[in-house]
Amino acid sequence: MVTEDDFEAEEMSYHRLLLAVDDDDDDSSRKAFNYACTLARTFNLPLGIVSVMETGDMNIFQSLSPDVIKSRREDIYHDLNTYVSKARAFGVKDVQPLIGEGKPERVILEEIIPEFKPDLVLLGSHTRRGHLRIGHVAGEIIREAEVSAIIVK
Amino acid sequence: MVTEDDFEAEEMSYHRLLLAVDDDDDDSSRKAFNYACTLARTFNLPLGIVSVMETGDMNIFQSLSPDVIKSRREDIYHDLNTYVSKARAFGVKDVQPLIGEGKPERVILEEIIPEFKPDLVLLGSHTRRGHLRIGHVAGEIIREAEVSAIIVK
Repeated sequence: MVTEDDFEAEEMSYHRLLLAVDDDDDDSSRKAFNYACTLARTFNLPLGIVSVMETGDMNIFQSLSPDVIKSRREDIYHDLNTYVSKARAFGVKDVQPLIGEGKPERVILEEIIPEFKPDLVLLGSHTRRGHLRIGHVAGEIIREAEVSAIIVK
Repeated sequence: MVTEDDFEAEEMSYHRLLLAVDDDDDDSSRKAFNYACTLARTFNLPLGIVSVMETGDMNIFQSLSPDVIKSRREDIYHDLNTYVSKARAFGVKDVQPLIGEGKPERVILEEIIPEFKPDLVLLGSHTRRGHLRIGHVAGEIIREAEVSAIIVK
């Protein structure tokens, strides 16, 4: 609770946005993308869009096949570039594609955030049994990141 | 991932904001308050500020004493009114104090959100062992609410 009364509301805004996109193209991922673009354009903020090639969910046979890895990597690049070009077309001036490989939550927390230095991370949610729920990656980021995060539903 | 390329980024904004404040007046609660006020003023949005009198953490002796309950209730009202008047002084035109009693996450999820109908809930975080962490109430709301939520750190 408010222990003292001698404070005033102050203008508070974010300066660098990071949008995490993933394999499951849900309505809420698109909403998160739209909100990230809206904030970035309205306040003229740099927007990083990160996609992580999840290597943990490939089985051993697949993970030994360079073709599978190559094909997945190409898909990720293609989809990430699609988001970036759509954001630019919308009017976001500074958009950066960011790509990683590994466990998405670890890569985002330990590599992408320390490097890109966002102060707001935007995450989509997933529909499960008719309800909008946060995924494992989003949950970890919200718990562990030292920066603000929004779950768009 | 993006399965089709034929989408465009769209303007996306929120329409009703709900800020949850709690007993632990942390830096991040103040930041959440500031961000809520900034969004509400910038986009001219109604802002609800909710505080829940947590009855679950009182022991049986205390919960039997009407004086303790009365005193706590007065504190909650006072603090909530402080937030509301600071928001108004900042320039937020439509600010509503919302008060509840019970388990904060249940009251917010089952009474306040269905009644006030926010599309974005703003929550502060807490400092634990030098790290910014989300509290239990915020975690539950982020998991279960069917609306977007931002954790301000």
